Amino acid sequence: MSHAINDEALDTIFRAARTNRHWQDKPVSPALLMAIYDLMRWGPTSGNCCPARIVFVVSEEAKEKLRPHLDATNVHKTMSAPATAILAYDLDFARFMPKLNAALADAFADPQLARVTALRNASLQGGYFIIAARALGLDCGPMSGFDNDGVDRAFFAGTDVKSNFLCNLGYGDLSHLRPRAERLSFDEACRID
Amino acid sequence: MSHAINDEALDTIFRAARTNRHWQDKPVSPALLMAIYDLMRWGPTSGNCCPARIVFVVSEEAKEKLRPHLDATNVHKTMSAPATAILAYDLDFARFMPKLNAALADAFADPQLARVTALRNASLQGGYFIIAARALGLDCGPMSGFDNDGVDRAFFAGTDVKSNFLCNLGYGDLSHLRPRAERLSFDEACRID
Repeated sequence: MSHAINDEALDTIFRAARTNRHWQDKPVSPALLMAIYDLMRWGPTSGNCCPARIVFVVSEEAKEKLRPHLDATNVHKTMSAPATAILAYDLDFARFMPKLNAALADAFADPQLARVTALRNASLQGGYFIIAARALGLDCGPMSGFDNDGVDRAFFAGTDVKSNFLCNLGYGDLSHLRPRAERLSFDEACRID
Repeated sequence: MSHAINDEALDTIFRAARTNRHWQDKPVSPALLMAIYDLMRWGPTSGNCCPARIVFVVSEEAKEKLRPHLDATNVHKTMSAPATAILAYDLDFARFMPKLNAALADAFADPQLARVTALRNASLQGGYFIIAARALGLDCGPMSGFDNDGVDRAFFAGTDVKSNFLCNLGYGDLSHLRPRAERLSFDEACRID
């Protein structure tokens, strides 16, 4: 059993955190990007399959490779962000199972099982990613509005890696925040049986 | 911009947290189960679609409904846990969009888009769920080893809700922890472009 974390930390990772679309002119260092992964990688996945793959888009050249595949409403906020993570998954994640969990080395041979396992668990890891970035003091701007096939051709050609979602990273300009959207109540989303 | 959370909190939610299979004889209150949802619901989803649905299996009757659908290796750890969450998603999540994001009320009409959006975002919310439970001092035991169709018939008959994964909840008996499995290095999973 561990101890609950304090209220200020709960605010940082959940209650006060907001999706950001406007950014301060303040870079995010490679060391900080690596620190996000160094936290999120400890989160659990099915059989420890760890299918998430991440490209951090930082250089001007990489940003220009990403630009044509963004939905129009996502161009400005992405091009002005200090970094954009492409959260992806490797359909051939099983090649690492001898290292990650040797007992399950052959458990994901069925392509349909591999596909749904990759999407489910890489998305779970996407949740860990967003919380880890916030825990390190960053603001996030996750997005699904882009051309997945185009991003895959531009960044993952010749591999089995497929893009899942994008997440801008930086220090938000809070003066531009929209009013917070509603969430479902406990009774709308949950029950105790 | 928010402040980074402290090292002890990072340990609690990521670095020292472990998947538990053995439980102390200590209940988890309904108020604490509701507190998990009250934190995780603030995590971002695509267009604020919030597709995750959760059944907390606590009563003996509900546990017996779950038992026949568990893989053999998951029976003991689940039946001995104080609570088991069925993390699920509503394929008809769009019915709440007028409340959640009225501008996107009709954006998920395509069933294939709705299905992948539900799986991606409910899994992302599953990541928030695990972190929220740990942040409140609970230990988690997430699992994919069960008969999804059987669980759906037993708990979600007559609805569009589909089970995604299970997560045991309680206070772990740390004397039974296995050695920690490896994770991928930064260079195996990530790159900076």
